Amino acid sequence: MRQQSAFIPTMREVPADAEAVSHQWLVKGGFIRQLSAGVYSFLPLGRRVLRNAERIVREEMERTGAQEVLLPALQPAELWRESGRYEVYGPELVRLRDRGEREFVLGPTHEEVVTALVGQEIGTYRKLPVTLFQIQTKFRDERRPRFGLLRCREFVMKDAYSFAADWESLDAAYRAMYAAYGRIFARCGIRYLAVEADPGAIGGEGGTHEFMAIAESGEDDVVTCSRCDYAANLEKAAGRKPAGRHAGEEAADIPAPERFHTPGLRSIDDLASGLGLREDELIKTLIYAADGKHVAVLIRGDRTVNETKVKNALGVLDLELADSAAVSAITGAATGFAGPVGLSIPLLADDEVAAMRQGVAGANETDYHLRHVVPGRDFPLASTGDFRNAAEGEACPNCADGELRVIRGIEIGHVFKLGTKYSEKLGAAFADAGGELRPVIMGCYGIGVTRLLSAAIEQHHDEHGMVWPAGLAPFHVHIVPVSDKDAAQTEAANRLYGELRAEGVETLLDDRGERFGVKLKDADLIGIPIRIVIGKGIAEGEVEWKERGGGGPAERMALADVPAAVKRWLREKGQGQV
Amino acid sequence: MRQQSAFIPTMREVPADAEAVSHQWLVKGGFIRQLSAGVYSFLPLGRRVLRNAERIVREEMERTGAQEVLLPALQPAELWRESGRYEVYGPELVRLRDRGEREFVLGPTHEEVVTALVGQEIGTYRKLPVTLFQIQTKFRDERRPRFGLLRCREFVMKDAYSFAADWESLDAAYRAMYAAYGRIFARCGIRYLAVEADPGAIGGEGGTHEFMAIAESGEDDVVTCSRCDYAANLEKAAGRKPAGRHAGEEAADIPAPERFHTPGLRSIDDLASGLGLREDELIKTLIYAADGKHVAVLIRGDRTVNETKVKNALGVLDLELADSAAVSAITGAATGFAGPVGLSIPLLADDEVAAMRQGVAGANETDYHLRHVVPGRDFPLASTGDFRNAAEGEACPNCADGELRVIRGIEIGHVFKLGTKYSEKLGAAFADAGGELRPVIMGCYGIGVTRLLSAAIEQHHDEHGMVWPAGLAPFHVHIVPVSDKDAAQTEAANRLYGELRAEGVETLLDDRGERFGVKLKDADLIGIPIRIVIGKGIAEGEVEWKERGGGGPAERMALADVPAAVKRWLREKGQGQV
Repeated sequence: MRQQSAFIPTMREVPADAEAVSHQWLVKGGFIRQLSAGVYSFLPLGRRVLRNAERIVREEMERTGAQEVLLPALQPAELWRESGRYEVYGPELVRLRDRGEREFVLGPTHEEVVTALVGQEIGTYRKLPVTLFQIQTKFRDERRPRFGLLRCREFVMKDAYSFAADWESLDAAYRAMYAAYGRIFARCGIRYLAVEADPGAIGGEGGTHEFMAIAESGEDDVVTCSRCDYAANLEKAAGRKPAGRHAGEEAADIPAPERFHTPGLRSIDDLASGLGLREDELIKTLIYAADGKHVAVLIRGDRTVNETKVKNALGVLDLELADSAAVSAITGAATGFAGPVGLSIPLLADDEVAAMRQGVAGANETDYHLRHVVPGRDFPLASTGDFRNAAEGEACPNCADGELRVIRGIEIGHVFKLGTKYSEKLGAAFADAGGELRPVIMGCYGIGVTRLLSAAIEQHHDEHGMVWPAGLAPFHVHIVPVSDKDAAQTEAANRLYGELRAEGVETLLDDRGERFGVKLKDADLIGIPIRIVIGKGIAEGEVEWKERGGGGPAERMALADVPAAVKRWLREKGQGQV
Repeated sequence: MRQQSAFIPTMREVPADAEAVSHQWLVKGGFIRQLSAGVYSFLPLGRRVLRNAERIVREEMERTGAQEVLLPALQPAELWRESGRYEVYGPELVRLRDRGEREFVLGPTHEEVVTALVGQEIGTYRKLPVTLFQIQTKFRDERRPRFGLLRCREFVMKDAYSFAADWESLDAAYRAMYAAYGRIFARCGIRYLAVEADPGAIGGEGGTHEFMAIAESGEDDVVTCSRCDYAANLEKAAGRKPAGRHAGEEAADIPAPERFHTPGLRSIDDLASGLGLREDELIKTLIYAADGKHVAVLIRGDRTVNETKVKNALGVLDLELADSAAVSAITGAATGFAGPVGLSIPLLADDEVAAMRQGVAGANETDYHLRHVVPGRDFPLASTGDFRNAAEGEACPNCADGELRVIRGIEIGHVFKLGTKYSEKLGAAFADAGGELRPVIMGCYGIGVTRLLSAAIEQHHDEHGMVWPAGLAPFHVHIVPVSDKDAAQTEAANRLYGELRAEGVETLLDDRGERFGVKLKDADLIGIPIRIVIGKGIAEGEVEWKERGGGGPAERMALADVPAAVKRWLREKGQGQV
């Protein structure tokens, strides 16, 4: 493409509202423009990258035998009522009425539609297994759209759904998708971790993994081990159960709990510094409403509660911190002074609390705490378990001597064993070999296709702009003549452009009447992998070859050698079409 | 693809609600399924055809230098208020509110979004011209969705928008699109006519053409000439002005209008048969409300009024037949007895009426008509013009001796010179060479991509099913072994399948354990162009080659010769990838 006639509106200033690096560069480089909060137009460069991502996703999906479909965005509300999600989904679900006042939603995902579709058509086990996928625009009315393409209200997703007659067959589909995801992200040049994730109370019966692109700007915490390959998202990451004796066993030498005055010391921080204690000597007591019923969760002062684990332990859908009125009704004290001793609501004690010899806890009396609180002696340990978020430096739950690290990630993919959750509700059944009707066993598999653009940039950029991996790059070669007034340069640039295009190489030619400095700045900004600068050296038939982000200096090369070098580079990068 | 594991749910019965042939075959062949009125899922075969159509459209758009973008479906209502279309568009525009109660629409087309986008970024004439296109899902809440993919509420459209600094440049973009459309439809195997169309009162200042796929099931009337290449849609098609003397010139021998009794003869039919007159001896008087003001339109009894022409002549947006109360208030008579003599509202007389020597017209008195009504003598001919629909057999307005034919067509594309209609309203301006700000001059260009599937089938089918043109076919080769119990057949089928796939030929292998008759019926139904039947002849290394819809008998061919024959066929059909 010739840059003079290309619609690439680069900007000199970083947009003020762009927090994430990828958001800044995508807007500045003229790849996207915001139409409304979380709603973006893809300009030609952005569309090219998106098409590359779509092509890679499509090829790898087809390699697994998945078949492409295209399902409607406009979905009757009845379907969502049947699955039970019309209410559960909340305000994120975009709702509307047609001219006949019939209720519709805009699909945020397609379990309902695809399950109803396959349920109508699959009569017998002989038609199974089948996996369908689509690359399609989704709508989610996010409470807080942000970070450019990372959290949008309208975005492109690849969603796939597998249908099987038995769990082994679901496992096979799941493994095939898991493997395909690895190939997809590798071809996009994205470093990722597949992490164990929590299916949640409304999830399916099977396993689930999230694929996380490692990036500081990520909104998710990923827990990994310093030694083994353990990786999980924070919701799922297990805390190791402390070894050694059970709490309360050797408490004979510990005095009874002793009430002491702690005026205004409400937080763990206040207490630790006010009393000269370590945080791990404190017992933190948090009172929750779990589907409306109150419980107290006890964790060590240096930990945070993992609400997903608490929800799963209690089997509830909704878990919220109790308000201060409820706290004072239950404890008889102001917020900040709750403790387990004498509390009448159910107690959930984290394993680390259960393993404490003694600790300091709230006294259930404003401005007072108790010392010498012994778990199992001074409060019951009927419900113990892993209720905390794994933390940096903790022992790995998987290997002997690894330490946990917590890093930030962007969720770019998700594979999920749904089981029969949707097929039962929507009546998607098949006749087994014995003629008996059974619900089909499903998996679902998503990739945030537009989000891949942001993830790639978060990992591949420098202070001058984007550095596109070969698989996603909008063009592979950028030809930049130093002066558009120099006939030899212009002629050489046009010739090379024609030759590369004839070879099928995606090439951008900067034929604009701009100063060289402006052209270089734009070239750095939009980050095409190979840059060929044509300057005065053309008198000797020479040009400069520079790889964006390669770090090394520009290399002088004979103009005539460039096409072969480009093709070699493309082969090395696995861009096999050429 | 192996048919056993393919999701191709063919049906034995034609769906009861499917009126159009293409709708019937698409559903029966397992290409699409309805989710809701005018909302369809594309199953694997349908998606493959749609992808072929998208690829052809994309390649030909890019060949013109148009650049691909992807614009949001979710559009702020304010933009539509700025352009003035929020109200004008009516209930076809899907409207919704987000969680913050902000109003949005789902894009039925993208003039507003693209004009605002380009308006922000194009500073000077040096960035022009530019043409952007997208292939994207559109939403229109049709009053009566029907005919499968022909009239949908959610559908895929290619829309392109050109931006130019002057009209010559718009003309060039328009011509490039016009030419690309011809290539696209030819590659899709669709016979079409480019017809002159009417830009309408809210249209632009320039020309417009519609591309019509000729098909009996089409919803549009297309007027063509039996001799020259004149073609227009019915709204636009000109009626030839009758030659010869002006009406009223030689009326001295004609008596004054004479009132006579015509009880109950309200319609032209009744009158003609009741009085033994030819329809072209009658003057039909229709009373309309034009933007609320009443006018009478006079046409010959054998003609119908072309409301578009009347609207354009009057410069009004809205034209509706007056209700019976208004008619009797204006004429003093019941409906059916209106006439031009003595009428006090403005009269618009069609050229053919103006050319009548005398005629019979309503008397403006219930159950009475007038004979000997002479145009220009008995009522004024202040406003005459072409106000009728062109009719079968009429003289061509373009050539000397052609006759008009009226045929049915499906609108598959539309090119439109918008001029500055949107750029003025949305403030899309550029600085010209003198530094003066001027509104950018636009064109817009649409193709109904999903509709192409229906148009192709309407033109290419027989009583057994679809007959896909090579460019759109979901697969090029269908391998059908006669028996899945015969090891030699199965082995040969698998080998051929492997060879063709290795060559990049899109191949479907019927490996199902079905009877041969069932397999053949399905093969006819889904209409893949080349069918290779592998039967007992495989003992001599021979198979059958049959072209779907080719008409000729099956041809015996050595199995070993099939790949070369397929490649030759593909080259002949211009399927150049192989």
